[in-house]
This record gives sequence, structure tokens and C-alpha cells, in this order.
Amino acid sequence: MQKPSLPKGTRDFGTLQMGRRNFILDTIKETFQLFGYQQIETPAMENLSTLTGKYGDEGDQLLFKILNSGDFAKDVTEDDLKNGSPSILPKVSEKGLRYDLTVPFARYVVMNRNDLVFPFKRYQIQPVWRADRPQKGRYREFYQCDADVVGTDSLVCEAEIILMIRRVFAKLGLKSYSIKLNNRKILTGIAEAIGEAGKEGPLCVAIDKLDKIGWEKVKEELSQRGFEEDSIQKLVPLVNLQEGLTQKLDFLREFLNSSETGLKGIQEIEEALTILKQMGEDLAHVDFDILLARGLSYYTGAIFEVKVHGVSIGSVSGGGRYDDLTGVFGLPGVSGVGFSFGVDRIYDVLDELGLFPEESLQGTRLLLAYFDQKGFDYALSILGKFRAAGIKAEIYPDSSKLKKQLEFASKKEIPFVGICGDAEINSGTLVLKNLKTGEQESLSLEKAVEALV
Amino acid sequence: MQKPSLPKGTRDFGTLQMGRRNFILDTIKETFQLFGYQQIETPAMENLSTLTGKYGDEGDQLLFKILNSGDFAKDVTEDDLKNGSPSILPKVSEKGLRYDLTVPFARYVVMNRNDLVFPFKRYQIQPVWRADRPQKGRYREFYQCDADVVGTDSLVCEAEIILMIRRVFAKLGLKSYSIKLNNRKILTGIAEAIGEAGKEGPLCVAIDKLDKIGWEKVKEELSQRGFEEDSIQKLVPLVNLQEGLTQKLDFLREFLNSSETGLKGIQEIEEALTILKQMGEDLAHVDFDILLARGLSYYTGAIFEVKVHGVSIGSVSGGGRYDDLTGVFGLPGVSGVGFSFGVDRIYDVLDELGLFPEESLQGTRLLLAYFDQKGFDYALSILGKFRAAGIKAEIYPDSSKLKKQLEFASKKEIPFVGICGDAEINSGTLVLKNLKTGEQESLSLEKAVEALV
Repeated sequence: MQKPSLPKGTRDFGTLQMGRRNFILDTIKETFQLFGYQQIETPAMENLSTLTGKYGDEGDQLLFKILNSGDFAKDVTEDDLKNGSPSILPKVSEKGLRYDLTVPFARYVVMNRNDLVFPFKRYQIQPVWRADRPQKGRYREFYQCDADVVGTDSLVCEAEIILMIRRVFAKLGLKSYSIKLNNRKILTGIAEAIGEAGKEGPLCVAIDKLDKIGWEKVKEELSQRGFEEDSIQKLVPLVNLQEGLTQKLDFLREFLNSSETGLKGIQEIEEALTILKQMGEDLAHVDFDILLARGLSYYTGAIFEVKVHGVSIGSVSGGGRYDDLTGVFGLPGVSGVGFSFGVDRIYDVLDELGLFPEESLQGTRLLLAYFDQKGFDYALSILGKFRAAGIKAEIYPDSSKLKKQLEFASKKEIPFVGICGDAEINSGTLVLKNLKTGEQESLSLEKAVEALV
Repeated sequence: MQKPSLPKGTRDFGTLQMGRRNFILDTIKETFQLFGYQQIETPAMENLSTLTGKYGDEGDQLLFKILNSGDFAKDVTEDDLKNGSPSILPKVSEKGLRYDLTVPFARYVVMNRNDLVFPFKRYQIQPVWRADRPQKGRYREFYQCDADVVGTDSLVCEAEIILMIRRVFAKLGLKSYSIKLNNRKILTGIAEAIGEAGKEGPLCVAIDKLDKIGWEKVKEELSQRGFEEDSIQKLVPLVNLQEGLTQKLDFLREFLNSSETGLKGIQEIEEALTILKQMGEDLAHVDFDILLARGLSYYTGAIFEVKVHGVSIGSVSGGGRYDDLTGVFGLPGVSGVGFSFGVDRIYDVLDELGLFPEESLQGTRLLLAYFDQKGFDYALSILGKFRAAGIKAEIYPDSSKLKKQLEFASKKEIPFVGICGDAEINSGTLVLKNLKTGEQESLSLEKAVEALV
């Protein structure tokens, strides 16, 4: 008999983890809905024609492909076999597991474009699969949690993303974090302003390493990537920029005054922040980061990234504005803005900071316990009263010693035990014991319900 | 540019469907939790060694297999190619998509047996995949929604399953349905009593067709399956049995008096129903169906199946008791009882009976609308008040005519629009319009919040 095991890079979620994950996900869902976003789901499997070519060569390699059903190898020839896997693949597989939620969403928008109401706000919380090399904190199956609004370029959306992030984090008890904010047009403008128009890609890749390797090494890399010495020198004031929002904006207006695109980027940042103020909101947690460059090739406007302070975990949320979600499926001009929460990382952050509520999050609140058959019968007769009041309640189903029942409650982290002894049966009451404090008192059933609701 | 499409047998769920599905699933989850069940999740992918051989030959064929990553064909030889797909399969695939939630649960129990608290009550709501031929109402990806308790043979569990089904159906507004209840031991007893011990399998397969093909044809089939004429004749009183619970039990006690197992089955049915009464519950919807035979090979005690009256849709819930969940993974003797809700079918039933709440189930409740920039600014400034009160609210993000905003609200099934005109701006109020009735009134913001909470 072989011992069962899990595929590499996959996980089970037990009851404790699921309670905690649901705590996070419910908070996120409630927030999305409060802002008018509605849920959709797409299938785990997509046609390979939908997935392939959307994530670069490396992404294509990381797609999990599904073997065709039935006699899958019937069209494979000896020549295919000689040519190897790439020749065989198209003959044995036409479907793959989704790699993210963005491409399925784009497909969904295109296929349903005549029925959707634009601006269309959707959220989607589903697992995705990547054949990555498994390592600590990186899994082959993990949940993504995306919200996007498409069909509008209003900066109200950007302002509301900041509000949604702040609401989720407040509800989760996270206090110390930054919502880094930038705009792709500013990065484009910087490249133009230093005389390297169109090279914001390599510029950002290099600048991104500033914290890790320092300015001298970044300069070297830029030089290797073909940036002129003169251009690199022009970056110095940017790299050293450390002041507040107004100062940064003032500096940039000067620095980018030759770049129409750059100035547009500044204007968009200002407008989003103005909308926040109009909404009666402050700029708490908002950190305008001129060099933030997340997912550059895709974004065309705002760029977001959220980092929690004091933990070793990377960004826990991020996103940005794009102006062509669905062009690859033949529907050009669909612009929008989206962001996502990294559920696994938020889980780790809350765990590291001890922010999960102590009480079991989805578990039973009351176990009815008894000494003998008479007590069991009594417990059965009163159990429904607690459930009718919405109290998660159960009875230890097999006749057993009270000690065993209490151990069961304790192991299952059930906070209260209602003990049914002879005195309770005769008076129609219950001894309610708080397992954490050890306190117990005799209560009428009504009072016991009140105490637990 | 190729038009994107979905793989055969898969579906997207749009916002309306997701609202309705969540209405069903939230009701089920809440009920499971009220009875002490807690959620777990297992990965979509399992090792083929875990899945294969658990669902019969046909099931093995219907497993979706995942192609190994990288150079998957490197070990395939020309001989394999000549021998065809069955020889190639083990060399190119070692993982598959889960086919149900029972086998992954069994694997989970075995892998975590030292950490779980028994009796262990878990629920699990996740998609499963089967390479079935797609047809109306049958999909290649669909959700299962299972609850099981393992590590106890208490009949309290059976009684509580009846209560959970009734609670879910009551919350969903379903009134006319039967919870058919039987016990595998009774079926075993019947086979013994008619002199065909051990043949309850073929007996039930034939009897199952009674409604469709009639008794004469069933007799023929039993005869073809090797049942003696004499045995078949002994079934007549059973087939004609139509009376109430007490009468059925009395009859069976007589009919099965030679079968120890059969009598045990009767006793189990009686005990579960006695527990219901002890819990202060009636037998509403419970229908003791002596010939109910669902999933015979697997169940050893109670058998459940739920049918809604007046709809063309098959059983919407079912389950039963088993005494060896995990033996196949080397851990014998784990008994339990489980049942599941068929979410797709419940959806279809509620749809057919018009039982979904009319109001949008996860959608926005209030759209703030405006005539001009001044109104837009005012709407922005008051939006947060509604959200702070938990009211799902949004603003049309792009400057546009009021008519367009109202159309947007109407298409998105937003029930209320808050109109921000000059009078409202000056008095700090809002015209709250009910889009369904057309009624509107001018309200202070506080009153508007109260009206919508």
C-alpha cells in the first residue's frame, strides 16, 4: 500500500488555515462589493490558443497542459517523436490550466462584450497554476484575487483603489504600510527628459535594483544597457529625491517640462489625489514613488504597489491602468484599471504580525457535554435552541466520559462547553463553562443563548 | 485574429449567476458551520497514483491528466508509440485533476490522521473535472459541495444531516421535496430474505428502473440476472408497499425477521428518527424508501437522496454512511457519513421555480448621479457616507448625461439612484429615486442612509 502524497508545490488547507483565509477573502469581497464590483468566475481550463503567447516564452513553458482525452497519441508520428516534445505537444494537448486571471478576464470581456454593462467592474477570486520550480513561499497552485474596471478612464477608479486597499487593511488590522503610487507616463517622461526616449523599460529594470545594489552599480548597468554617460548623470537628482509629495511634484514639473507625456502623468497623479480629497479622504499611506515600475510593459497610466512595513514579505497588492486589455483577442481600445491582493502573502503578514483573531474563525462556539445517557438526551433536546439563534453548536456524538468531551472541545478550539448534569436537567438549565478562563456559571437556556450570541 | 472560445463543457459564470450561486453556497456554508462542520480545501491536481483505480475503469478514462512539464516526451520510445496511448501515458503524465472531493478527502485524512480531532467534521466546496461527453446539464467542470463526519458511528450524524438539508431548503425557499432515506443493511436483508444473499447489487439496479419500465420488465431483468422465479415472487409485497412509516417498519420487521443484518438496518433507521424526535424535530419531508439504493457499493448504513417535487430535475442532494473511507490508502476502519448538495441542480430548481430573490444578490444598491461637474463633485463628497454605513454604492465615473447614468443603473439592476442637483447641493440633501417603482423623494443624507441600510 503506497503512502499517499501531494504533488510538488501544492497544498492542502486545513480548517484553521481555511478560517483564516476566509477571514481575509471575506474582507476583500465585502470591500469590492461596497465599491460596486461584482464577482465572476471562469473555468480552470482554457484553450491553449487562448493562453499561449500571452505570458512570454517563459510563461508558455510554465503553463500546465492537459492531455487530450481518449486515444491522445493517435496522431503522433515517428517523426514527431524524433523531433521531440515541441512537435508532439500540439497533437496531444489543446487545453491548459489558467495561468492568471487577467487573460481569462480579457477573453470573457470579448466573448460577452454585447451583454456587459460598461464601465464593467468585476472581481474574481480563483486559483491559478504555474509549473514553477517549487520553493519557499512559491506554489504551483495559488489564489489570485483581482478587481478590474474596464470601459472608463476616469481617475475616480484610481482614487477608489486606494480607498479599497485602505479599507481592507484597516479591517485586517494592518496599520503600517505604504501604497506606492506612480504613473507610467512619468517613467516615459523621465526617459525622454534624460535624452533616452523609449528606453524606460531598461531604465526601470536597472533603477529597480537601487535599494539592493546601490547607485554606483546601477550606473554601471545603465551604461552596459547603452545609456549615455550624460543621460545617466541627469538621473542623479531623481535618485536622490527624498522629499514630500508637493516637493516631488514641483521638482517633476520642472524636470519633465520638455515631455508632454511626462506632464500628463503628473496631472493624472494630481487629479487622482484631488479626487481623494473631494471624497473627504486624506492621503494616509499614499507614497508617490517616482521610480516605481511594476509590470511596465502592460501598464499605461497609474501604477500601484503595496508594501507592509516591518515584515520580510514583498508587495502584498499591486496593479495599474492599461489601455488595451483585449486587443490580443481582436477587441482593441478596452481600457481600464485593475489591482489584486496577494492572499498568500497577506496571510503570511498577518501571521507574522500576530494579527489573526485569537478565536477560531469558522469553528463551533458551543459543545454540549454530558455525563450519561440522560444528559445526552437532555443535550439533544436543547441543541436546536442554540442553532436557532445562529450559534454554531454541536454535541459529542458518541457516549463518552466528560473528560474526553472537554478534550475534544479544547483540541477543536471550541470556546464554550455547556455541561448537562442531573441538576441542570431537573431545572432546565445549563452550566456554561468558558474553556479559556475556566470560569463557569449555571444559566437558564435563554441566558445561555444570550451569553453566546 | 482568432475569436476566443471556451473549452467544450466548461462555463463562465457572470455577475448575475455568481450572485445566485453565492446565495446558494452561502446558505449551505452557514448551515454546515452551524452544525460544527469546518471547511478544508485540497489542490486541484492530485498524483495519478492517488486518483487511478478509485472510480472504476470508466472513471479512469474520464480523469483529466496533466502533461508533465518540460521535455515531457523524453522517455517515450518508438515501441511505446507502437503500443499506443496506454503505454505512453505513464511516461508523459503523473498528475490529474480531481474527479470528486471524496478521494482527496480520504487522502487528506490519511496524511493528517495524527493531527485531526476525531470525530472530524469537514465540508469542502470546490470544482471537480470529468472528461465526460458534454451534454445539457452535464459539464466537464462543476462544483461539488460535500460534508462528511468521520470517526464516529453515532446516528446523531444521520439525524443532523436531515436537519441540515431541511435548514438549507427552508432558507432557499424550497417547500415541496422529499428526503428519501434507506439503509444499505435493509437492502442486504432483502436479498437474504428472498433467498438471493449477496445479490443486492443487481437487485437494486433492476428495482431502480421500476418507475420507468414497470414491474413486468423488472421481473424479466431480474430473471436474466439469474434470480430464481421463486425469489422474484417474494419481492411482490415490497414492490407494492405504499403505506406510512410505521406500517413500512412493521412490514419489514416481519419480512426481514430471518436476516440479522436486515433487522440491524431497521433498528438504525428507527434510532435516527428517534434522535430527531428527541431533538424536538418532526419527520417533515422524510420519506423512508425501502428500495432506495444510491451508490450501493460504497455505502454500508444510511442512504439519503433528496428530490424536489414538481420539477424535471433529478436528485439535488444525497449521501450515506460508509465504514471504510481510507482503507485504499492504508488506513482501515475509518467510518463516517457524508452527503453533498448538487449546486448546479439546486440552481436550476430555484430558477425553474422562480425562487431567486428578485433583488440583485451581490450588486450595488445605490448609484449617485448628477447633471454637471458641480453635481459630480458633490456626489463624490457624499459617497463615503453610504459606504461607511455598509451600503454598496458607486458613482458613474465619467461625465455624462443623467439619462445615460440612469440607463447604467437600470442595466446593472441597481435599485436606487441618488440624484445630485443644484437644490440638493445647496441644501445638503439628495433625491432618492426607486428605479422599480419610479417613486422619488428628497431626503437628508442621514435619512437616505437610513432608507437604504
